[in-house]
Amino acid sequence: MPARHAVVLLSGGLDSATTLAIAAAQGFTCHALSVDYGQRHRVELTAARKIAGMLQAEHRVMRVDLAGIGGSALTDPTIAVPESPSEGIPVTYVPARNTIMLALALGWAEVLGARDIFVGVNVLDSSGYPDCRPQFIAAFEALAALATKAGVEGAHVRVQAPLIQWSKAQIIRAGVRLGLDYSLTVSCYQADELGRACGVCDACRLRRAGFLAAAVPDPTRYA
Amino acid sequence: MPARHAVVLLSGGLDSATTLAIAAAQGFTCHALSVDYGQRHRVELTAARKIAGMLQAEHRVMRVDLAGIGGSALTDPTIAVPESPSEGIPVTYVPARNTIMLALALGWAEVLGARDIFVGVNVLDSSGYPDCRPQFIAAFEALAALATKAGVEGAHVRVQAPLIQWSKAQIIRAGVRLGLDYSLTVSCYQADELGRACGVCDACRLRRAGFLAAAVPDPTRYA
Repeated sequence: MPARHAVVLLSGGLDSATTLAIAAAQGFTCHALSVDYGQRHRVELTAARKIAGMLQAEHRVMRVDLAGIGGSALTDPTIAVPESPSEGIPVTYVPARNTIMLALALGWAEVLGARDIFVGVNVLDSSGYPDCRPQFIAAFEALAALATKAGVEGAHVRVQAPLIQWSKAQIIRAGVRLGLDYSLTVSCYQADELGRACGVCDACRLRRAGFLAAAVPDPTRYA
Repeated sequence: MPARHAVVLLSGGLDSATTLAIAAAQGFTCHALSVDYGQRHRVELTAARKIAGMLQAEHRVMRVDLAGIGGSALTDPTIAVPESPSEGIPVTYVPARNTIMLALALGWAEVLGARDIFVGVNVLDSSGYPDCRPQFIAAFEALAALATKAGVEGAHVRVQAPLIQWSKAQIIRAGVRLGLDYSLTVSCYQADELGRACGVCDACRLRRAGFLAAAVPDPTRYA
């Protein structure tokens, strides 16, 4: 059987690391793509490199200057990361982020001849981000079929989001079964240069509650 | 009436310059977005700046390293730009380029509160690129409605492609009526540093034939 190639979006957080482990376990030759979009938690890019290395995936970092358009607490240093849950879509939402990242993944998939893109989006723990919902993923897959040379030639790309309906605890248990070392992952929106988490932002709260619910010791290093 | 804002993708070529002129003539406050994706014809970014200035549009250049994934004669210096028409989708096709550019435009539109994105794609003179077709634009608009905070809140973004069914001659006549100075635009895939065109690539051939068919003097500077 020829190698099946997949592009896997890898932020360096818990969800995308688990997604990469799942894709690798399914036998895909994985090409991990991290996007440097000017995020304040840049240490996650270092985490992504280590995770890709551990899972023997090729790793590339593409730079896109989303800080240039602002509009999010993750890219605009003048907007603070909230330390308590908010109503509606939070200020950590980055405009069109997943659309942009999937578009970049689609471009690389086309060059590689990969028919699968994996993305670690999750609707339950998504903090209300619109681009983490199943209908968004389905719409992107429909777009991909029309957008590319491969699509026109009948080689449709599948966008796989295996975690989309899972709880954080389910995600963590799946990763543990696959031998994933979660101490390498960084979820915190404002992790320090050493990858230590703040413990109070939305991402930290969801992560900590997930380890508790999964009854797995939390390996996160807190500042 | 409050100002209506539009993001306009502006490559610096003939089609996108005409699209910007059309959006401005419709009364939009225009925000022109050029994407520096590692294209060999980088002089088009200089052209874009001049065109935006002439049409009094804000102008931003976002950098995305598509050369990092290769796969196109426009981003990979080892693939030659063809000098005669080819069958099927040509090697100048850049994987997922319009998907990536529209995704960036969508992000900026969301930050600006703009409800309109203009893009100068054209199906007749598109050299067979899949992401220049009406069904691609419709699929992107459907995606945008699901992808963004604004979409979730009911403020759908329209993707306007006014040139999509026009011939090159129709485009040129429309631009001339709007007072557009086509000597500022650069279409050539391998223009030199001074913006002079090769005269033999697909883009040059389509452009030259367009001026001839429109019975408009061709202001292109050839090398």
